[in-house]
Amino acid sequence: MTSKDLTSTDTTLAQTDLLSQPHHDGSALYVSNLRPRLGETVSVRVRVPHEADVSAVHVRLTLDAEPKFVDAAVERRTDTETWWRAEITCHNPVTSYRFILEGGTTAYQWLNGTGVHLRDVPDAADFRIVTFAAPPDWAADAVVYQVFPDRFAKSVERPTPGWATAADWDDPIDLSRGSGSRQLYGGDLDGVVEHLDHLRSLGVNVLYLTPFFPSRSNHRYDASSFDRVDPVLGGDESLARMIDAAHALGMKVMGDFTTNHTGDTHEWFQKAQADPESDERGFYFWEDGGYVSWLGVKSLPKLNYDSHLLRQRVFEDPDGVVRKWISGPHGLDGWRVDVANMTGRYKTQDLNHEIAHQMREAMHDSTPDSLLIGEHCHDFSHDALGDGWDGVMNYAGFTRPVWTWLRDKGFAPKFLGSPLIVPRLGGSSVMETMREFAAIAPWRSIQHSFNLVGSHDTTRIRTLVGEDSRHVDAAAGLLFTMPGIPMMTYGDEIGMRGDFGEDGRRPMPWDAEQSNTEQLNGMRWDTRILGVYRGLISARRNNHALRHGGLRWVHADGDALVFLRESAEQTALVHCSRAAHDPIEISTRHLTGVADASTAYGRDLVLSGDSMSLGADAPGVSIWTWPTP
Amino acid sequence: MTSKDLTSTDTTLAQTDLLSQPHHDGSALYVSNLRPRLGETVSVRVRVPHEADVSAVHVRLTLDAEPKFVDAAVERRTDTETWWRAEITCHNPVTSYRFILEGGTTAYQWLNGTGVHLRDVPDAADFRIVTFAAPPDWAADAVVYQVFPDRFAKSVERPTPGWATAADWDDPIDLSRGSGSRQLYGGDLDGVVEHLDHLRSLGVNVLYLTPFFPSRSNHRYDASSFDRVDPVLGGDESLARMIDAAHALGMKVMGDFTTNHTGDTHEWFQKAQADPESDERGFYFWEDGGYVSWLGVKSLPKLNYDSHLLRQRVFEDPDGVVRKWISGPHGLDGWRVDVANMTGRYKTQDLNHEIAHQMREAMHDSTPDSLLIGEHCHDFSHDALGDGWDGVMNYAGFTRPVWTWLRDKGFAPKFLGSPLIVPRLGGSSVMETMREFAAIAPWRSIQHSFNLVGSHDTTRIRTLVGEDSRHVDAAAGLLFTMPGIPMMTYGDEIGMRGDFGEDGRRPMPWDAEQSNTEQLNGMRWDTRILGVYRGLISARRNNHALRHGGLRWVHADGDALVFLRESAEQTALVHCSRAAHDPIEISTRHLTGVADASTAYGRDLVLSGDSMSLGADAPGVSIWTWPTP
Repeated sequence: MTSKDLTSTDTTLAQTDLLSQPHHDGSALYVSNLRPRLGETVSVRVRVPHEADVSAVHVRLTLDAEPKFVDAAVERRTDTETWWRAEITCHNPVTSYRFILEGGTTAYQWLNGTGVHLRDVPDAADFRIVTFAAPPDWAADAVVYQVFPDRFAKSVERPTPGWATAADWDDPIDLSRGSGSRQLYGGDLDGVVEHLDHLRSLGVNVLYLTPFFPSRSNHRYDASSFDRVDPVLGGDESLARMIDAAHALGMKVMGDFTTNHTGDTHEWFQKAQADPESDERGFYFWEDGGYVSWLGVKSLPKLNYDSHLLRQRVFEDPDGVVRKWISGPHGLDGWRVDVANMTGRYKTQDLNHEIAHQMREAMHDSTPDSLLIGEHCHDFSHDALGDGWDGVMNYAGFTRPVWTWLRDKGFAPKFLGSPLIVPRLGGSSVMETMREFAAIAPWRSIQHSFNLVGSHDTTRIRTLVGEDSRHVDAAAGLLFTMPGIPMMTYGDEIGMRGDFGEDGRRPMPWDAEQSNTEQLNGMRWDTRILGVYRGLISARRNNHALRHGGLRWVHADGDALVFLRESAEQTALVHCSRAAHDPIEISTRHLTGVADASTAYGRDLVLSGDSMSLGADAPGVSIWTWPTP
Repeated sequence: MTSKDLTSTDTTLAQTDLLSQPHHDGSALYVSNLRPRLGETVSVRVRVPHEADVSAVHVRLTLDAEPKFVDAAVERRTDTETWWRAEITCHNPVTSYRFILEGGTTAYQWLNGTGVHLRDVPDAADFRIVTFAAPPDWAADAVVYQVFPDRFAKSVERPTPGWATAADWDDPIDLSRGSGSRQLYGGDLDGVVEHLDHLRSLGVNVLYLTPFFPSRSNHRYDASSFDRVDPVLGGDESLARMIDAAHALGMKVMGDFTTNHTGDTHEWFQKAQADPESDERGFYFWEDGGYVSWLGVKSLPKLNYDSHLLRQRVFEDPDGVVRKWISGPHGLDGWRVDVANMTGRYKTQDLNHEIAHQMREAMHDSTPDSLLIGEHCHDFSHDALGDGWDGVMNYAGFTRPVWTWLRDKGFAPKFLGSPLIVPRLGGSSVMETMREFAAIAPWRSIQHSFNLVGSHDTTRIRTLVGEDSRHVDAAAGLLFTMPGIPMMTYGDEIGMRGDFGEDGRRPMPWDAEQSNTEQLNGMRWDTRILGVYRGLISARRNNHALRHGGLRWVHADGDALVFLRESAEQTALVHCSRAAHDPIEISTRHLTGVADASTAYGRDLVLSGDSMSLGADAPGVSIWTWPTP
C-alpha cells in the first residue's frame, strides 16, 4: 500500500484523456440485470484501462443505510483494459453503489457517476440499481412526437366555443397578454389522423398529445372535466379513431394529465365551491377564505390528495381518470403528467411519491405495458428513482446544457419562468452538467426520461440557435444519440420558430409544405432540417447502441462533444460540433474495432495509424458504428 | 447582459483567492433567524467582494419543489464588498436556496454550499433553512467528553459477573478475538464522579457516557434491559449521583441508546424467543426460521418498529426507555443514538425518519432542553435534516478528512469496517471534502453535529499521527475551531494511544498522572498535549466566533489550512499546519479589523502593510480574534 503524499486534489470531470479512465454506467454492458427483483443478485462490471494501474477493486454498498464492501474479481483482460466484476444483492429497493479502485497514485480512488475521485465525496452521484417495476419494453426504443392539438391539423370547421376567439390557420399567434390562451385555431384529433403519415415518414413511433380534456383555453391544462374528450377536438370518438390509426401504424399514444390541479370550471371544483359539505370540497385546499391554486393562478385550483375519495376517482376507480383512458382497445399507452414535481406537495404535505406510486400501480394494473413520465423542470434527484414516474422530462440534465452550448450569441433566451438569461458556455461545461445530472438518478430513470431541445413551453430550437440552421443539426444530433427518450415538438422538424412557449405554438403549415425557401405568413418548411431529423431518427432506430448503449465521454471542448454509446453488440461514436473546428486527434488505442466503423450519419471517419481525426467545417453531427468486438 | 462565450468550466472549490469570492453560509451573520417557524420570513444575506463584479443578486428557492426566484437588494456597501439581502418565506419545512449572481464574466453564477459555479449544478449543495424544532440553546456552546464507563475510573471493587473476565486497572487490553468484549476493568459511575474535577479543569461542559444498561459485554451495546443501570456500574443510584454531581458543576450529561437492536439476553428478546404469541415477538424481525440481527451478529437482534407496542415502550410511555432516563431531577440532558443510520431500516422498510422524529418529540415533550445526536458513519444528507436527530456524529465530513491530512505516513489506518487504508492527502482535499459534506445538510445540523478526531470505535488520534505529537495539536486545533460540537474521547487529552477501537479503550491511567515521560504499562500522561487541549477548549469557550461564527475558507494547500469564523460581534482567524512551512502571504484587504487582532492561541500574527504572513516552524495551530467592525 502506497503512502504517497498527494497534493493533487480531485480529478472529477477531468477533461484530458477520458478514455484512460475507469468506467461504469448502469447500461446492460455493465449491469447484468436491468430489472432485478428485491433480493436478487446482480453482476456489476467496471472496465479499467491498464494505465490506471489498479491492483484491486471493491464495491461499496449502503445496505439499510450502512456501508458494506464487496470484493470484485477479474473477469477478463484485453490488450488495453481489465474488466472486473462483483456480485451485489439488491437488499433494498434502491441499491446505491460506487467502486473503489486500489493502486495507482493514491491509496484508492472512488468511481461514481461523475467519474473518478481521489478524495472522499458524498453519495449524491453514487450509481443506483432499483427493484421497482420496470418501464415497458417499448419505451427505450421510443422516439416521441409532441402534438399541441389546437395547432397541429384541422379536419373540419366547428363552432367556436364561447370562451374562445377563432383564428384562421395562417393567422399569427396573438401574443397580447391575457388573450393568448383564448385564441383557437381549431386543430382537432381527426386532423392528427390525417397527418400520421408525416409522423411515420419521420420515423417517430410515439405520439404524445398535450391535454385533450374540455377546458376554457387552447392549451387545455385547465380541464373542466376528465371524463370526456373536448368536443372542440372531435370528442371521445375522435380520440378512439386517432389511437386506432396510430396503433395500426405501430405507434404508441401518450396523453397528458394534470395531477396537480384542475380548471376552476371543473365539475369537481364547481361542486366544491357551491357546497362546502360536498365530497369534492375535500379535493382542494381551502385557506384564508379562498382556495389554493397553482402558483397563484386562480383558474387552476390545486388538488389535495389527503382526500382518499379524490385518489379513488383519479387512480382507483376503473372509470377514474387514470385507468379509463389507458384501458381497452382504444386506450392510451401512457401518461405524461403535468407539474409532476408539485403534485401532492403543499407546505407540510408531501404525498408526491405516494401519489406517483399509486398512479403507476393503477396504470400497471390496468395496462401493464404503459409508460408514465413526469414533468420536471429542475433537479429530479428526489423524484426520479423509478418508484413512481418511470422517467421525467429532462429539462435540467439535457435541455439546459444543450441550450447553453447552442444558443445564439445574440439571442438571450429565458427558461421556464426563470428571470435569468441562459448563458452561453463551452462543451466541457455541457459535458460536466450532463454528467452531474445523469448521476443524480438511476440509469434506468435517465434512459426512460424525455430528452428534449424544446417544448410547447419554451423557445423553439430553430429560434434559439440563431441564423445558421446547421446548429439545429447539432441539437438534434444530441437529442437522437444521447441516453434518454428523444421527444421533439411538432414543427421542430421543419424549422418552426418561436421566441418563447406561446409564440412557438404556431399552426403546422401544411399548405406551405412545398415552399422550402419562401415565407408564408412566417411559416415555411425547411426541408434541409426535415432531412436532418429523418436521418437522425433513422440512425437511432437502426442502431442498437444509440438506444441501449452506455455512455462514455471521449472529448469535450468549446465547440466539440464526442462520446461513445456502447452495447455488447454494437459501439457508436458520436461527434457533435457547434462550429467549424480544427481536427481533434484522438488515440484509437481504447477503441477496439474502430477499424470496422461505418458511417451511420454525417461525414466519414478519418483513421490514420493509431489515431482518428475529428474535424468539422460547419456545425453538425456525425455518427459512426461498428460491432463491439 | 453579456453574451461572452465562456470556455472556462466550473470554478467550484477554486483554491485561489478565496476571499475574493462571494460568500454565504447558514450562520447568524447571514441568516436572520436560525429557528424560524413554518410560514415565517427570514432575511438571507450574501457578501460580494467588489472584484466579483456582480450587478444583481437573486435567490432561487424551490417551493413545493418548484423553482421560484426572489430578488435581493443592496443592504450596504463597504470599501471592499457589497452586502445583498433578500427576504424568503419558509413555505415548506425545508427551504432549499441558492444565490444567483448576475454580471462578471458570464450571464450569471450560482452560489451554493460548495461555492461559486459558472454552470448549472444539481441541488445537493443548496443551502437549507429548516423549521423543525431547534436543538437546545446549550448545544452550540457544548464541548463534549466521551467516557467509556468500564475504562474511565473505578470507585470500588465489585464481584465480577459470570460473563466477564476481571482485569486489573494496569493490565493491557486483551485483543484476542472474541474475548475482548468480556474483559472487565470495573470502571463505574462513582468513579466518574471522583474525576469530574478533571473534566472541569479541561473545560468540557458535556459528559457523554457510552451505554450504562446491563449487558454481557464491557461496551454494553448489547443491553439485556433498558429499565435499569448495570449494577456493575453502581446501579440507578450511581447514575443519579453522577448526573447530580455533573449538573452541580454546570455540566450536561448525555446517555447512549441503541434504538437499532437489543442484546439477545434482553428481557424483550427472551420473551419473544420463548413465546411466539408474546407481544414482544413483534419487536423483532423473524425470517428463515431465525431472527434478523445487526450485521449478522446474533447477539444483537434488530428491533422492528412496525410494532406500535415497541414504539410505545421505547418512546411514548412515561416510563419507556427514552423518557424515563431524561426526566426528573436526576435525568440525562440528551441521548446519543447508536447505529442511528440503520434504525428502522430493513429491506423494504424505512421508518428511520418516523422513528427519529418520534424520539425527538418524546424527548422534547419530557425535557424540552434535551439534545439528540445520531451515530452516522458516512453520507448523512438524507438523515441530518433536523426532523429527527438534531445532529449526527460527523465521521464523514470531519473525522475522515482530518485523518487524511494528519495520519502518519507510515501508519495505515482503516476506518469503521472499511477494508481500505485511509489515504494521506493535502490540505486542499481536506477543505474540499469538508465543504462538500458540510453542504449536504442544513447549517444548523452541521453546527449541532459531533465533530471528532476519534472515538471508542476508532484508532486513537495520538496513534494515528505518528511520532511527532504536535500533529495532535493540529487535529485538536481543527476539532475546537470548526463549526460543530467538539467531542473528545477520554484519554485523548493525555495522548492515549490505540491502533483501533478496541485497542484504544485503555483504562485512564490516573496513577500515572505525574509521570510525564515515563511509561507505566504503556500508560502515561502527555502533559504537553493536556495543555494544548486545555488551551484550545478555553479558546473555544471564550470566543463567540468559534462557537457561533460562519465559516469562510481563506487558504488550503498541502500543509496549511486557514479559515475564518465570523459572527456579528467577533471574527476569528485560524491557521492549522501539519508541518513547518514557508510563510503564506495573504492580503488583508478583505480582513477588515485585522489590525486589532489579538492572539487567542498560538503564535502572534505577523502583519505588514496590506498583508499578513502565516508561517509555521512545526505542526500546530494558531487562533487570532478581533471585534467584527
